[in-house]
Amino acid sequence: MTRRNAFYAQSGGVTAVINASAAGVIETARKHKDRIGKVYAGRNGIIGALTEDLIDTGKDSARAIAALKHTPAGAFGSCRYKLKGLDENRAQFERLIDVFRAHDIGYFFYNGGNDSADTCLKVSQISQRLGYPLIAVHVPKTVDNDLAVTDNCPGFGSVAKYVATSMREAAFDVASMAKTSTKVFVLEVMGRHAGWITAAVGMAEDRETPLPLLLLFPEIPFDEARFLAAVDAKVQRFGYCCVGVSEGLRNPAGELMGEAGTRDAFGHAQLGGVGPLIATIVKDKLKYKYHWAVADYLQRAARHIASKTDLEHSYAVGKAAVLLALAGENAVMPAIVRMSDKPYRWKIAAVPLAKVANLEKMLPRNFITADGFGITAKARAYLAPLIRGEDFPPFKDGLPQYVQLKNVAVPRKLGTEFKI
Amino acid sequence: MTRRNAFYAQSGGVTAVINASAAGVIETARKHKDRIGKVYAGRNGIIGALTEDLIDTGKDSARAIAALKHTPAGAFGSCRYKLKGLDENRAQFERLIDVFRAHDIGYFFYNGGNDSADTCLKVSQISQRLGYPLIAVHVPKTVDNDLAVTDNCPGFGSVAKYVATSMREAAFDVASMAKTSTKVFVLEVMGRHAGWITAAVGMAEDRETPLPLLLLFPEIPFDEARFLAAVDAKVQRFGYCCVGVSEGLRNPAGELMGEAGTRDAFGHAQLGGVGPLIATIVKDKLKYKYHWAVADYLQRAARHIASKTDLEHSYAVGKAAVLLALAGENAVMPAIVRMSDKPYRWKIAAVPLAKVANLEKMLPRNFITADGFGITAKARAYLAPLIRGEDFPPFKDGLPQYVQLKNVAVPRKLGTEFKI
Repeated sequence: MTRRNAFYAQSGGVTAVINASAAGVIETARKHKDRIGKVYAGRNGIIGALTEDLIDTGKDSARAIAALKHTPAGAFGSCRYKLKGLDENRAQFERLIDVFRAHDIGYFFYNGGNDSADTCLKVSQISQRLGYPLIAVHVPKTVDNDLAVTDNCPGFGSVAKYVATSMREAAFDVASMAKTSTKVFVLEVMGRHAGWITAAVGMAEDRETPLPLLLLFPEIPFDEARFLAAVDAKVQRFGYCCVGVSEGLRNPAGELMGEAGTRDAFGHAQLGGVGPLIATIVKDKLKYKYHWAVADYLQRAARHIASKTDLEHSYAVGKAAVLLALAGENAVMPAIVRMSDKPYRWKIAAVPLAKVANLEKMLPRNFITADGFGITAKARAYLAPLIRGEDFPPFKDGLPQYVQLKNVAVPRKLGTEFKI
Repeated sequence: MTRRNAFYAQSGGVTAVINASAAGVIETARKHKDRIGKVYAGRNGIIGALTEDLIDTGKDSARAIAALKHTPAGAFGSCRYKLKGLDENRAQFERLIDVFRAHDIGYFFYNGGNDSADTCLKVSQISQRLGYPLIAVHVPKTVDNDLAVTDNCPGFGSVAKYVATSMREAAFDVASMAKTSTKVFVLEVMGRHAGWITAAVGMAEDRETPLPLLLLFPEIPFDEARFLAAVDAKVQRFGYCCVGVSEGLRNPAGELMGEAGTRDAFGHAQLGGVGPLIATIVKDKLKYKYHWAVADYLQRAARHIASKTDLEHSYAVGKAAVLLALAGENAVMPAIVRMSDKPYRWKIAAVPLAKVANLEKMLPRNFITADGFGITAKARAYLAPLIRGEDFPPFKDGLPQYVQLKNVAVPRKLGTEFKI
């Protein structure tokens, strides 16, 4: 067995726990020094590979790498950069292989969503065509929870826990104020295509903690009259109403509500998102006082309230990726397989990338109640284990202590520049 | 010594820890059953007193009352309702005394901000004028931290911890994405009149965790050109920039930026707040991709990341209020006195309400750096102990468990209705 180096990169929107996958990759690789020499990370994702801007993760201590498990976001930098098709832009892929060859990279670990799974597959294909020996393994990650095959995506459980907790807390606040002040509260959450995160907001309330809550899913076209009637019914009955709305909510014409021609007095487009828009519709039509929040990056960076289950998954897929690579499994992704809901049991299984790449897993219609405004028992059974467990980061002087790595550059070996 | 009942009410915007003050009041009263009979709470604050809608807190168990210490918002309901002057609306005050007399209330505990301190003082004055024996004690609370005399206000430390943590986490996210995507992130925080919460955002970064951060205080009129230059300088140097902006930011004409004529295509006013407005200005002028968040109620309800110091203060002022009342101290407020920064030591001292009512404590100019965009060492020394310590609520199935009290109504004794 030869000893070769590994390349790891983070891709797309980051999460509260993607660095736990990085720790899984790096720590597992360090345990197999006979097979894996250096672990290089791409600075700012795949761009780091294309521009030969590699980070030597070996320059960071075991302690710093362990701290990645409690540090949100992408410690090596991520990027939104999709490699084109093999035929459209063969030069890019060839450049990747050139860089890999220069640094004797035999393992390619790509940590991302469905676009990245596709890129990972293509990298595997081009390496074979070019006769360059490379094992490519995709490490799943996305808060959107829309990767195919895997039961859930690392990153989602923590967002889910954050939005459910935040909505529960805000609902208690609104309940206090409703008599003379705010009666309707709107929280906008992420998930442009699929309503997984919106569904998670629904976990804010349960039998033990009843709250008047309505959800607006991207899967259900916005029906203003029905929505207003539902809000009014909640306010009449409970004194207030909370609304969780997806950034991906669409009007009956199929347009994103948050982008449908909103412009302020200065001509700025897209000043507010769909959250403030929904709140304003409530105010205009029902005359109720409202508040709204848009958590934006706060929700996907909230490592301070990450889900322990999610963290375990995230570390496990990083670790499994390395073990799969060492076992010679190429063009695969370690997927999370749910074995039972109660007790929650799961395992990791390798899935061919061709079954994952570019596919989107939508929220099943039977996760949404018939009226379109809530989640079903099926959804609850699915979501419950994913938000379970706490794993608070270390705090110092009142604030979570997150690691900033040294990110020491690997000396370049190629004399050529590559324009992105 | 006669045994009389107590009345407790929550007033104004609620906080993550105001219920800890309620627990302090109720638990301390329960320890003095020889002097205090029932503790009645106003349903929805002072409105509950005016309408004789009282809650018998005795119907909730010791366990439920203890759970208030880890439950955000106002467990008995709060209200935004300011009693007018004694001469303008004497009927209201007389009605209060009628209700108190009917229920043999000898102690009045009012948990609120500077308006409430004023109301508490007036209640004390009218009871004397009417010859009704009543001891009125104000229990301080406000996320705005703008009460006079007291070193800090219960509720503020937890918001401060939340906004500093959230900005730190979001900054890590933006740092990851900046190469190809978001370069500027804007977080809008509360505090319409004083920049205390904005200052707390500044704690997100420190020597151990350097981050490019700019703050926009309500105290410093917005200077677009200087701001844009500062943002651009941060992006040029660090690759990205984070901005914490107060909802109370004003333009040079003194108008609130978040309300200065923003209107969307449908004619909805105030669609976005100042956070999205600032983000849009950055986008329009500097062409940087942006994201923005408005935490709104999330920040003041975030009991899951409350400050332990803040909780201790909150409980202590509730407890002290009862002990002061039992000692015969009337028309006072238990204030927090800082005895030293390092180690942080504090005590409670009674302050006459006349010294607190209707006053606002502004952020000192020497807490803000000369350039107007940051906080000084003085501010850090002040803020540091207030955000220190964690006191996580109990979690069950992944979510914080907050108590919803029974809130059993006290049978009415007066045959008269009172219109609010």
